[in-house]
Amino acid sequence: MNARTNGAGTGNGLASRVSGQVHVIGAGLLGASVGLGLRAHGVDVTLEDVSPTTALLAADYGAGRPRTSDDPAPALVVVATPPDVTADVVARALATFPEAVVTDTASVKLAPFLELRRRGVDLTNYVGSHPMAGRERGGAIMARADLFTARPWIICRDEETPAGALALVEAVALELGATPLEMTPQEHDRAVGLVSHLPQVVSSLLAARLLPGSEQAIALAGQGLRDTTRIAASDPELWVQILGANREPVVEGLEALQADLAVFTEALREPDSPGARRRIADLLADGVRGVQRIPGKHGGTERFVTITVLIDDRPGQLGALLTELGELGINMEDLRLEHSPGAQVGFAEIGVLPEMAERAIADLTERGWRTL
Amino acid sequence: MNARTNGAGTGNGLASRVSGQVHVIGAGLLGASVGLGLRAHGVDVTLEDVSPTTALLAADYGAGRPRTSDDPAPALVVVATPPDVTADVVARALATFPEAVVTDTASVKLAPFLELRRRGVDLTNYVGSHPMAGRERGGAIMARADLFTARPWIICRDEETPAGALALVEAVALELGATPLEMTPQEHDRAVGLVSHLPQVVSSLLAARLLPGSEQAIALAGQGLRDTTRIAASDPELWVQILGANREPVVEGLEALQADLAVFTEALREPDSPGARRRIADLLADGVRGVQRIPGKHGGTERFVTITVLIDDRPGQLGALLTELGELGINMEDLRLEHSPGAQVGFAEIGVLPEMAERAIADLTERGWRTL
Repeated sequence: MNARTNGAGTGNGLASRVSGQVHVIGAGLLGASVGLGLRAHGVDVTLEDVSPTTALLAADYGAGRPRTSDDPAPALVVVATPPDVTADVVARALATFPEAVVTDTASVKLAPFLELRRRGVDLTNYVGSHPMAGRERGGAIMARADLFTARPWIICRDEETPAGALALVEAVALELGATPLEMTPQEHDRAVGLVSHLPQVVSSLLAARLLPGSEQAIALAGQGLRDTTRIAASDPELWVQILGANREPVVEGLEALQADLAVFTEALREPDSPGARRRIADLLADGVRGVQRIPGKHGGTERFVTITVLIDDRPGQLGALLTELGELGINMEDLRLEHSPGAQVGFAEIGVLPEMAERAIADLTERGWRTL
Repeated sequence: MNARTNGAGTGNGLASRVSGQVHVIGAGLLGASVGLGLRAHGVDVTLEDVSPTTALLAADYGAGRPRTSDDPAPALVVVATPPDVTADVVARALATFPEAVVTDTASVKLAPFLELRRRGVDLTNYVGSHPMAGRERGGAIMARADLFTARPWIICRDEETPAGALALVEAVALELGATPLEMTPQEHDRAVGLVSHLPQVVSSLLAARLLPGSEQAIALAGQGLRDTTRIAASDPELWVQILGANREPVVEGLEALQADLAVFTEALREPDSPGARRRIADLLADGVRGVQRIPGKHGGTERFVTITVLIDDRPGQLGALLTELGELGINMEDLRLEHSPGAQVGFAEIGVLPEMAERAIADLTERGWRTL
């Protein structure tokens, strides 16, 4: 088995688990990627978008074709619009195609569900879902059939959701190579509020503190600052929508953070007040334990030994190192590059299995590489 | 020129820029690395530590030798102790070796300096410094002669610091391959407060919020959460010392963050109050601009095109990809691995020069790799 040929359930030529026509509403990155992925499995996909140009562009990329009046009713409708119009478009789809199962891809799940209930929409045929995939840039032009491969695809069932509707949405997730996971809308929103939305806000607010910083200070930025602020570069407009639609869990997380931050700041301001140093140390230790909860590769706890190799930071050097690693039969489990400000030297941090480490260092040293 | 043979100023056989004996006090990671690096250039290094065992261990690793009563007075004393005893040890070194230049490696600079002044110590021969290098694990056993290669080495001069003393510390920094940068103690502490200490606290407090999270939520953790919380795994005891010794800039940064966090949380809690959405969007946009201030490689603004390649997440696959990249002559400028929860498939994100991207994708695809 090889990722180059078998992939994760997206191999062409397999019989599709999805039968009947699929209609996609919203032909941006997610909608067009669903279309491309299903068409690669021989599914007939039709497309629409509030912008006819966007729909035609996605069709040109092979994500599907416009619906015609001769088309049969779709078996499944996938609503892939921005979160603030999701409920609206789902309600319309349920009314237009009363026999179809309707799902959506919005990154918040409770708000659209409550809005649909408030309107008295019959939700028997609705199954909310959230494929946890994306790219930094959006649009049909960035769409890929492989976008969902190996990503979690959260499926939110209602008590009254018919088994057939649930099975159809799960089949689509599997067909696209994703890992379906069932949760309630509340569980979903609380989970992504903690592991995605709260870190986004924290990263943005930290990065915002760099604006008034001196050039001299910013020039000393290292990998720690780069890592903590990377996601702060995301699109503010999309995040205003997402955070607004998941206010309760995010506000709750921010309030808990505010409380911790107040305790920490006060203790650091008055370190000689009783227990102040202890409170600082306790919060830092809580952070260590919090990080330890994040699963490693495949949810396991396996750990690799990191070997740091010094490389000239110019084209060819990294390639030379990697080629030699291949020749030496050293399997890298992880690799990370680090560059130093003002220097033409970089570091490649290579993760290897513990039992490989000693030989790897010996072999690399013998070939003239400097390891740290 | 090749990193394997030329390095960044650490090539053996070059005449050392440091003349006279160097005495290192504190034989942990930094002290032992200074000793190893200088001895590699033929400098005579003597060692002491509050723990005689630690000093002997560092000597066994080749970082220097114990001082004897026959030794001449050192030309330079390097104090590499934890920050809370730095002033004490520097004062003692200045008294014991009145002809020597004394420097230190503490990651805070103003507090030790003020403490020395408070004691009325003559600081003519003292030059504070901070090599911005370290490893996640400490101790002489982790020491490396290359630890400082291509890292910034901040040197804090006083108005009255003699040129000769400054030149000697700069020579040591250069000898060890570092990039010396001059700052005042205030400038240094403010800079590292912003780019190192504030991110540390923020990352720790965010990671601490994971403790009460459900297993279900933590299982959805993605690369964004991993990146924002990576440095939260650092040693709490060391950070209690560092933060305590740099209270003013860190408290100031935390207060500004508290103010932003309060505005953000209140706006999200009451999104329909006047201007609330605007305040959320403005803070997120400030974060985008803040990230853009962080210099890229070598402080330049060069950008690479990222190609994502799907790989089977098992030993050998990544090696195979990297070997083929070498064969294809594709120079990677950056590389990052990403793993997906619950999946046996990973992604290698490869940064290449823009003019290389099209050919790289074509070549990889032709060889059967799937690129996103």
